[in-house]
Amino acid sequence: MREDDARLRAVVLGSAAGGGVPQWNCRCRVCMLARAAEQRVRPRTQVSVAVSADGVHWLVVGASPDLRQQILATGALTPRAGLRHSPITGVALLNADIDAIAGLLVLREASPFRLFAPPPILDGVRANPVFDVLDPDLVQRVAVTPGQEVDCGHGLTLTMLPMPGKVPLYLEDRAAAAAAAGPTYAARLTAGGRRLLIAPACADLTQPVRQMLRDADVVLFDGTLFEDDEMRTAGTGHKTGRRMGHVSMSGPDGALARLADLPGRRIFIHINNTNPALIEDSPERRAVVAAGWEIAYDGMEIDA
Amino acid sequence: MREDDARLRAVVLGSAAGGGVPQWNCRCRVCMLARAAEQRVRPRTQVSVAVSADGVHWLVVGASPDLRQQILATGALTPRAGLRHSPITGVALLNADIDAIAGLLVLREASPFRLFAPPPILDGVRANPVFDVLDPDLVQRVAVTPGQEVDCGHGLTLTMLPMPGKVPLYLEDRAAAAAAAGPTYAARLTAGGRRLLIAPACADLTQPVRQMLRDADVVLFDGTLFEDDEMRTAGTGHKTGRRMGHVSMSGPDGALARLADLPGRRIFIHINNTNPALIEDSPERRAVVAAGWEIAYDGMEIDA
Repeated sequence: MREDDARLRAVVLGSAAGGGVPQWNCRCRVCMLARAAEQRVRPRTQVSVAVSADGVHWLVVGASPDLRQQILATGALTPRAGLRHSPITGVALLNADIDAIAGLLVLREASPFRLFAPPPILDGVRANPVFDVLDPDLVQRVAVTPGQEVDCGHGLTLTMLPMPGKVPLYLEDRAAAAAAAGPTYAARLTAGGRRLLIAPACADLTQPVRQMLRDADVVLFDGTLFEDDEMRTAGTGHKTGRRMGHVSMSGPDGALARLADLPGRRIFIHINNTNPALIEDSPERRAVVAAGWEIAYDGMEIDA
Repeated sequence: MREDDARLRAVVLGSAAGGGVPQWNCRCRVCMLARAAEQRVRPRTQVSVAVSADGVHWLVVGASPDLRQQILATGALTPRAGLRHSPITGVALLNADIDAIAGLLVLREASPFRLFAPPPILDGVRANPVFDVLDPDLVQRVAVTPGQEVDCGHGLTLTMLPMPGKVPLYLEDRAAAAAAAGPTYAARLTAGGRRLLIAPACADLTQPVRQMLRDADVVLFDGTLFEDDEMRTAGTGHKTGRRMGHVSMSGPDGALARLADLPGRRIFIHINNTNPALIEDSPERRAVVAAGWEIAYDGMEIDA
């Protein structure tokens, strides 16, 4: 493909934070609305984004546990030729959390693809024998150096960028494993001179992070919580957003205030079930929209 | 609950073998029909069965990777009280294959339940740090001795029975891990004097297996393949059913011939995407129905 034929595009396969919306065991206000007939809250699966430069070959960023359901719901990812086939030619992992890697187990049926991740995340995957089901002869592990461009083929270039983050939940209490836990990354995808930044987890809007976001034509950014203490307020958890590795939408340190000067299209993704901005007619949703942001939903198509 | 109030019932959450129907990367005849509008083949998720004696508390047998989607599709498993709740009070694991354990990762949001499995299967789970996300203070591991009854509470009794099986696929090539791999089991559930046997994998219809099946009022039995070499014929694999640990429906050693004398209700489950009995109007389906068998489907409700 010639570079000037490339057109960067994405499909949001899943837009929710870990657990999805509704979460299997949750009766918070948002989850109850997501189960109701009126659908003031759209149901959402866990974060995964498919990206392509040619509309034929796709890189999946984030291996959501819901990947089987997501692939079946997405026309662009339907196999097209021969007996076994997939338009998915690569998968990129942004961190080693369960909601970011468990989907690899879905991709176990003898289809070749490349698995892109920084070494600490590949190590986190390798520590679990279940992932050995991905035959290394078919699924080539590509150790990505953060900050360096990687050619994903078919006109698409990937750069993984370190983000202020936290240790994955399941490693928190295991000192040895935690030492091996990597940070979290954003993925910058480029094609045809356009840039899409996917950053579902960001603990702090530092100057380098803000610059990285300003440099993109479209950002899919951490929309986990509306308020830093909303999980405590909702009663669903005792941790603040910051403790979990997420800046909030609102507040003086939040994305709405600190990212008001982004020049490109801005979309929140990785939205937690406690976040009232998920409710279509809520004041929080109106505040988000008024600030020029969109809320990602499953199936959302993005032309970057 | 008084024993004579108990009524044994089940909901088939998922009825397909590993990969589901359609499988994400497959264009075999059955998968193509499952994607078509006519729906001569119903789409199916991977095997999991919910069982209850009181209609209120449920044991999930088999932790399918599709468990989030399955719970959301099943009214009986919707949380009913407080902020966090689930009718799921237990999970039983029949083997350590990915399509039988990955769903545990779905159940990670701080809800208490009991995890029932024989020690080799608990060990297989424990070998993967990702499953440490199930806090042992909330998720009690119950080591089940095969052949011994376990009280699951709420009127339900579970017995795990060893079945002729095989080593899980992802452990096959790792000598050390393979040594730790357990066999596969059937689950016998009893309540109110009735017996349901769930046996999604059986490599050989030995005399003890046939007796175990005869003793049940309802059996959900291994329906992986119609013919032993059908994956080779379809071109989707090089292994026979027997090599994978599954007897076939047809043939002189198959279930239709060898289990013709079962006194109870007989239902095939764990059906592979190559199995032509999945096609509603196929000769193979007619042969199965003529022999007195049913084909399980997602959402099927069973009054045992």
